[in-house]
Amino acid sequence: MALPSRIVIHELGPREGMQIEKTPIATAQKVRLVDMLSDCVFPEIEVTSFVSPKWVPQMADAEDVCAGFRRRPGTKYTCVYLNSQGMARAVGTGKLDVEGSLSVTASETFSKKNTNRGIEETFAEALRRIEALRQMNVPISEISVMAAFGCNYEGNVAPEHVVRLVDRMMGIAGDHGIEIGLIQLADSMGWANPLSVRRLVGMVQDRWPEQRINLHLHDTRGLGLANALAAMEMGVDDFDSAVAGLGGCPYAGFKDAPGNIATEDLVHMCNEIGVETGVDLERLLDVAREAEAIVGHPLPGKVMRGGNLESYRRRARAEAPAT
Amino acid sequence: MALPSRIVIHELGPREGMQIEKTPIATAQKVRLVDMLSDCVFPEIEVTSFVSPKWVPQMADAEDVCAGFRRRPGTKYTCVYLNSQGMARAVGTGKLDVEGSLSVTASETFSKKNTNRGIEETFAEALRRIEALRQMNVPISEISVMAAFGCNYEGNVAPEHVVRLVDRMMGIAGDHGIEIGLIQLADSMGWANPLSVRRLVGMVQDRWPEQRINLHLHDTRGLGLANALAAMEMGVDDFDSAVAGLGGCPYAGFKDAPGNIATEDLVHMCNEIGVETGVDLERLLDVAREAEAIVGHPLPGKVMRGGNLESYRRRARAEAPAT
Repeated sequence: MALPSRIVIHELGPREGMQIEKTPIATAQKVRLVDMLSDCVFPEIEVTSFVSPKWVPQMADAEDVCAGFRRRPGTKYTCVYLNSQGMARAVGTGKLDVEGSLSVTASETFSKKNTNRGIEETFAEALRRIEALRQMNVPISEISVMAAFGCNYEGNVAPEHVVRLVDRMMGIAGDHGIEIGLIQLADSMGWANPLSVRRLVGMVQDRWPEQRINLHLHDTRGLGLANALAAMEMGVDDFDSAVAGLGGCPYAGFKDAPGNIATEDLVHMCNEIGVETGVDLERLLDVAREAEAIVGHPLPGKVMRGGNLESYRRRARAEAPAT
Repeated sequence: MALPSRIVIHELGPREGMQIEKTPIATAQKVRLVDMLSDCVFPEIEVTSFVSPKWVPQMADAEDVCAGFRRRPGTKYTCVYLNSQGMARAVGTGKLDVEGSLSVTASETFSKKNTNRGIEETFAEALRRIEALRQMNVPISEISVMAAFGCNYEGNVAPEHVVRLVDRMMGIAGDHGIEIGLIQLADSMGWANPLSVRRLVGMVQDRWPEQRINLHLHDTRGLGLANALAAMEMGVDDFDSAVAGLGGCPYAGFKDAPGNIATEDLVHMCNEIGVETGVDLERLLDVAREAEAIVGHPLPGKVMRGGNLESYRRRARAEAPAT
């Protein structure tokens, strides 16, 4: 299948990147990261997470980060929250594009560890969640399945199981007059490979041909870009990633951070294969280096070390003898 | 196209991995790395490089490394050399499977920097090289093109140019009664992407359908595994890689080591997509960690940190409640 001419990239670095960092990071640094990312022209930046500071102390300054960053017109600034209290905090900032999604985790064990409730409880609570979102006028247009490819605690996740979960959530959405426009498949612990991406994406496309699909990929085992390409060749044009490969879930059961696919590496691949992203890669490489400086340890992004091929091409052209 | 049922992996870590390391590594450590790799059951391990110690001091102990390692029956132990002096040293060890290849670099600038001669000189010297190899009874069955996808000094390399170079080398081989069985395409500086891999591999396959193709890939910009998969889907079943992602060429014009694709990450991908390699992944992950300890700095391999999915599956099965 032909590659999409353009993809949408949701930048998660400030949220997913920071939550796993153990050393406290100054609020001003977090604000700086968001502002630098804004200058790269993303359609969406996930700014922070409204969760209990008891569980994720790094996110205790979520309101301050929101107060500090500068909104760029044309970019959506979103966040994560796990319950209505968190949602109320997010709405309360007056600074964010708060959105709702109907989320479910495909692994029972990971669901309990990460969201403190099992799969059936998640469905049982969906109605309450929808009511809370509506009370705050938060729009809902997305269904999200976490651990959609596999789980460190439970092993493989069958694509049929994922389709059933989406189907149930679609039913709930339909019952409440909610129009879903996007299905997110999240490889939260880096289990996907290009064949399993094709299989699951194909099954979801067959069942819901009118839905847009978003892939949230981790590069835990080096397959992140291969998976993204496999998805693009299936027509997927919506991806999550994090600058410099920041990130990871604190409850994924890893010693080391698994890390999202690095945004600049995704953008670079897209540039090389002729898929537009609208993102300014040179600026983004500066942000990736800055992100390393902010967290104070090496991050997995490759292009910030290997160099943007386009800059090598420009230099080669400049140095070529006139013919 | 269907994936090959099995691929051959040439392990380059001890040679390509060590040559770029600035800190001297003890001979015993190098020997240990080769021996540990032998236990993983590779069809080929590239042990060392017979080059001038003036230019690559790390390789000054090539003879001692050869004296020290233990040959495993069924594995070929090969090496790199750049001239007949180096070849004589390699043959002199009595320990190596010395092979000859007809090599050419697709970029004039990189050719001069890396081999000290330009493209035309390389062709002019091919006859002398063939004679030298024959005098020492070294078999020749391979044509190799370095910088086959692009060059940090010259930019893109056109696939037509690569095909012409192979064609000229094929002519020289034919004139001297040399039967070529393998064409190596080396992405020495990490310029390939899955589309350019398909294009060049396709052109070479169309022109020489009877030849086996080897890909030597670098993961400089995170595309290594995506490129390997693209090649496998074209039917390529012969790859170079280096444990832990060791390696890189000292003359590639990088500040940081570009690094070969990490063998364990390639093996892991193959395991996940049902392509056999014959390599023992669990042992190889131990070697990857040992390689990091030996060089004394983090190496880019991912699976040694993220974990072999098969081991997570085993644990999940063991912990699953009986049904």
